[in-house]
Amino acid sequence: MALDRRAGILLIAIEIIMIPLFAFQLYYGRDADPVALKAKSAHLSYYPMFQDIHVMLLVGFGFLMTFLRKYGFSSVSFNFLLCAVMMQWGLLMQSLFKGPGITIISLIETDILVAAVLISFGCILGKTSPIQMVLVAFLEVPVYLLNAHIGDKISVSDPGGSIFVHVFGAYFGLSVSRILGKPKCNNLEATSYTSDMFAMIGTLFLWVFWPSFNGIFTNTDDEQQRAIINTYISLTASCVTAFAVSILTDSNRKLTMGHIQNASLAGGVAVGTVTTLVIHPFGALIIGVGGGLISTLGFVYVQKWLERRTGLHDTCGVHNLHGLPGVFAGITSAIVAAIATQEVYGPRLFLIYKARAPEAFTSELKEIQHQLIQVLPGEDRSALGQAVYQLLGLAVTLVVAVTSGIFTGLILKVTSRWTGIVPEEYIHNDELYWNMEQEDDKKPRTLELETDSNNRLNVV
Amino acid sequence: MALDRRAGILLIAIEIIMIPLFAFQLYYGRDADPVALKAKSAHLSYYPMFQDIHVMLLVGFGFLMTFLRKYGFSSVSFNFLLCAVMMQWGLLMQSLFKGPGITIISLIETDILVAAVLISFGCILGKTSPIQMVLVAFLEVPVYLLNAHIGDKISVSDPGGSIFVHVFGAYFGLSVSRILGKPKCNNLEATSYTSDMFAMIGTLFLWVFWPSFNGIFTNTDDEQQRAIINTYISLTASCVTAFAVSILTDSNRKLTMGHIQNASLAGGVAVGTVTTLVIHPFGALIIGVGGGLISTLGFVYVQKWLERRTGLHDTCGVHNLHGLPGVFAGITSAIVAAIATQEVYGPRLFLIYKARAPEAFTSELKEIQHQLIQVLPGEDRSALGQAVYQLLGLAVTLVVAVTSGIFTGLILKVTSRWTGIVPEEYIHNDELYWNMEQEDDKKPRTLELETDSNNRLNVV
Amino acid sequence: MALDRRAGILLIAIEIIMIPLFAFQLYYGRDADPVALKAKSAHLSYYPMFQDIHVMLLVGFGFLMTFLRKYGFSSVSFNFLLCAVMMQWGLLMQSLFKGPGITIISLIETDILVAAVLISFGCILGKTSPIQMVLVAFLEVPVYLLNAHIGDKISVSDPGGSIFVHVFGAYFGLSVSRILGKPKCNNLEATSYTSDMFAMIGTLFLWVFWPSFNGIFTNTDDEQQRAIINTYISLTASCVTAFAVSILTDSNRKLTMGHIQNASLAGGVAVGTVTTLVIHPFGALIIGVGGGLISTLGFVYVQKWLERRTGLHDTCGVHNLHGLPGVFAGITSAIVAAIATQEVYGPRLFLIYKARAPEAFTSELKEIQHQLIQVLPGEDRSALGQAVYQLLGLAVTLVVAVTSGIFTGLILKVTSRWTGIVPEEYIHNDELYWNMEQEDDKKPRTLELETDSNNRLNVV
Repeated sequence: MALDRRAGILLIAIEIIMIPLFAFQLYYGRDADPVALKAKSAHLSYYPMFQDIHVMLLVGFGFLMTFLRKYGFSSVSFNFLLCAVMMQWGLLMQSLFKGPGITIISLIETDILVAAVLISFGCILGKTSPIQMVLVAFLEVPVYLLNAHIGDKISVSDPGGSIFVHVFGAYFGLSVSRILGKPKCNNLEATSYTSDMFAMIGTLFLWVFWPSFNGIFTNTDDEQQRAIINTYISLTASCVTAFAVSILTDSNRKLTMGHIQNASLAGGVAVGTVTTLVIHPFGALIIGVGGGLISTLGFVYVQKWLERRTGLHDTCGVHNLHGLPGVFAGITSAIVAAIATQEVYGPRLFLIYKARAPEAFTSELKEIQHQLIQVLPGEDRSALGQAVYQLLGLAVTLVVAVTSGIFTGLILKVTSRWTGIVPEEYIHNDELYWNMEQEDDKKPRTLELETDSNNRLNVV
Repeated sequence: MALDRRAGILLIAIEIIMIPLFAFQLYYGRDADPVALKAKSAHLSYYPMFQDIHVMLLVGFGFLMTFLRKYGFSSVSFNFLLCAVMMQWGLLMQSLFKGPGITIISLIETDILVAAVLISFGCILGKTSPIQMVLVAFLEVPVYLLNAHIGDKISVSDPGGSIFVHVFGAYFGLSVSRILGKPKCNNLEATSYTSDMFAMIGTLFLWVFWPSFNGIFTNTDDEQQRAIINTYISLTASCVTAFAVSILTDSNRKLTMGHIQNASLAGGVAVGTVTTLVIHPFGALIIGVGGGLISTLGFVYVQKWLERRTGLHDTCGVHNLHGLPGVFAGITSAIVAAIATQEVYGPRLFLIYKARAPEAFTSELKEIQHQLIQVLPGEDRSALGQAVYQLLGLAVTLVVAVTSGIFTGLILKVTSRWTGIVPEEYIHNDELYWNMEQEDDKKPRTLELETDSNNRLNVV
Repeated sequence: MALDRRAGILLIAIEIIMIPLFAFQLYYGRDADPVALKAKSAHLSYYPMFQDIHVMLLVGFGFLMTFLRKYGFSSVSFNFLLCAVMMQWGLLMQSLFKGPGITIISLIETDILVAAVLISFGCILGKTSPIQMVLVAFLEVPVYLLNAHIGDKISVSDPGGSIFVHVFGAYFGLSVSRILGKPKCNNLEATSYTSDMFAMIGTLFLWVFWPSFNGIFTNTDDEQQRAIINTYISLTASCVTAFAVSILTDSNRKLTMGHIQNASLAGGVAVGTVTTLVIHPFGALIIGVGGGLISTLGFVYVQKWLERRTGLHDTCGVHNLHGLPGVFAGITSAIVAAIATQEVYGPRLFLIYKARAPEAFTSELKEIQHQLIQVLPGEDRSALGQAVYQLLGLAVTLVVAVTSGIFTGLILKVTSRWTGIVPEEYIHNDELYWNMEQEDDKKPRTLELETDSNNRLNVV
């Protein structure tokens, strides 16, 4: 069995070990300190958007994954478990990079980090036990933070996390899945009418709140407003495109729920790298159409091709929703960066692309700081230089994600004696993990029949 | 079939055509412009309420319509599609009336406009193909905007949109439905236990967030707070009344889920015209009871009568939830307008009823502006005059909605060769539009039986 | 039958009686008055958190209770009805304690009061008619307010309401349930795959928005930020612990959905009394682990033991989620109060523990007020004294809740001729209350069979 006494002990052990780690490493940040905070807290204004993201993680991702007919309990609950464990581990690991003082900002950054973990989780859903998934997540978080830290150091701009969250999470999870191999028996890898309906709860909450995900961390109010507008428009475009492409690629000219559930969200990923930029409403529309197109084609052609040719099995189609649109977003960000001028943005350009600011102690910097005090010294990077760095950020992320994912997959294989293997016949099957006495009456049973006075057979 | 290659091509064509339209017509408003916005943006404070409304459209309306047993995929997904297409079309069309600069305010106004479209959609749900619905929506939006513009010009006060959103959307959709005619075969027009449960997700999110819908656009903070309080109270009253009337009108003294799902929301519609006014808590209660009563009686008596006598088929009972309570709201608004005095409201009266402000260059205006600088010159309309204009606004809306709805219905009929007709046997049936391989095992099948040693027949 | 004409008449009568009561007792508070409110309203900033709580009541509690296989309609709808009636009654009753002027603050306080009623409702779900539940709720509200008032008077600190909402609601409801007795026939007290999935909607929204419930009413911004951080951490801990203990206590080492649905939330209850205090992140973690542990053990051992030994039947396991973790929270609050020093909190200590402030007209008070003007005169209570009062608050609440619950249960018994009794065979059965024609085709039916040419029997 995939769950045993050790699974329970491991989880409780994690909590017990967390206590001293929390005690030594984490304390309340200045903003949450009764003595340090003198006036009003600016951080509280983040709370409504934070809650939107919180809904996305628990309800959005949780229900989006319930599309499998016999794996609803596990999908929504293991997503829940992963969120909870990784919120703790994320707070801890993050404090190594950003300092031990916790405020709402830390919770938000942790939530975003957890999103990457949940994306990876979608690749191996149903094929791995919860203990394996927790192990994967523990390994993923520090690599995620390291990669994001590199991106920050080389000043890659990615306000919606398309590169550092979506591409990273997707290719990390896909690499783990590739190492674990393709399930031989997957006759439960199907949906039911009800499970597809539950999945739409996830889709809709993700779609509705995505502007908060892409727009929560911005330097200025105009950036935040553009983030909201661009994401809103891009999502409408990917939704319409997903419907169109789903019909056009189907031999019966019918729609497929899986495309609607997922590809309609691709606009949120695709616009994530440039969400705060002046891409204009029509630019957001083009990006959304591109995202929806790539994603739906991914579901229809790429996924099957990859599975057949490379043995890559991707339960939720993460590659189509997060991988391909994320790469598209990375490339888009290079194009947008190459044409971003100070004429359009004014001095706020240097808040978005920090490295493009003039170097320290130059008169150019002084002049710009005179206009906008928040601009920090940069490295006088050119627009084209920024474009190259955007692509570099994408490339680094791909390399780091795939390498660490393979490594993590190998660790899973080596430790499978302890972490457990899901038996082939229980893949995508809740019965492996859950007490389900309630399903007794649905099992096939022998019908007892008898003949009535009209010589008709009746069920007794 | 109702979906074919043309449906996919049409949707992708819409997106392609939208790109130049967006490029030429829409740009970021001052508030989202990196150079124009100097300080903090006031528009961002609308964001939490905007998200509530966004949830109402996608999750609220989307799931409310999933009550049909075999039409859940289509209900929630075509609602999703309509939202996405109409958010684009709405932004465009609206810019003709309000200018091309987009901010969060534009997104909110578009969302409210989309609500009207979704209301109409409820009338023809299951009887029209998604392409027909998109066509209807494209035609509806400019008429909606024109009618709202007229209302604005003649200073009709309707902060919650009961007249301009609910009455308009309902009677437009009903007129379309009337022209299309009553489905002959409607044996799938029934609910299932699970579909009724899904519909409650929609009901509850609509109920919870309705105060945001009624209170998002207000002139002052006291107005907004009254909008929230009045809607909260009115909704509780319509909920309790719906339960009461559902029991009392049933021959078995049992409740009907359809009444609870819909009529409990009627208080939100009924109070919408006067939501910011000083109707006092007891006034909100009376209006909520009235709305719940009218709505439930509509479901029990009016809907069947209309269907039998006039051949009007209304899938979701839109007339009962949006039509009748909307008319009630219009009449209520006249009564409330007739008794509104400057004594109660102070100079803020002239922010609510703009035409009641004194005319330009009068000393009365000068005096009021001295107290409240925001008051603009009006036309010195009397309280009774305002009441008459409220009724006029309702009448104009009814005429415009019915006329344009009939016209739209006729266009649908004329173009049915291109837009497709839903075959009678596929009305309210997801199988027309969706790949549903997962349902194979539920189809009726030949039972193989054999006799066992006890001479009893067993299923093999 | 449990519903009859009287049920409908009662509900409509409640509304009619509410109208004059509202008219005489309630008016708009200063903040919602067009003449009184001069500048911006501070109360509107509460709105997003208020909406979170609103979602918790209607969607959270509503769907959490839908876990029963045949009681989904009733669970979610009667929860809805109770919310609506009690929001009216709560506004009224509350005005007796806090004054008749209504603002958003009143709506929030009413929502919190309704939470206590819904907790009690969970104990008697399925065993009582909606009319009985409304009667129970009408009696519960004034006692709730009285008890909370006592707590206020003796300065018990309980920002998240663990004592005054959770302990009160749980033991009140349990006492009512104990008097009503254990249902003899409970073969419908089971879940189905779908009903367990619906219940997870409730769990997740409660989990996500719980920080708003615990953090809405705070004195300062640092308090609010700690409330959010502490609740976030505590909830992650109770979630992980619930999974661990569910596995470890199961003989098959499988998980039980009921534990995950409920015990994962226990951290929110457990941390409620000290949510604004400086318990440090590790303290929140310990409390969450404790809450999750107690709650899951409650489900596995205590509930069955109580039912067997004392005849206490608790449909939703309210004792395990709200009762035991609430008592744990009360004890925790005494410990935390005993070690709270002015060194850690500065003068803000006296905003949290009002009675610890120096007495009026003392020089100590003057000095503190010099640092923080909002501090009011207290009674110079010591830290240990505050700890004792925290336990006293818990004890008083237990006594008041049990006594008034027993009393209410006896009233139900005495009035059962009028309020109706749920027939044993209809316990936990929607069919008692709802028109369910849609379920016809699921009922067992006579199969008509005929022999085909291969001499096999086919279903006609």
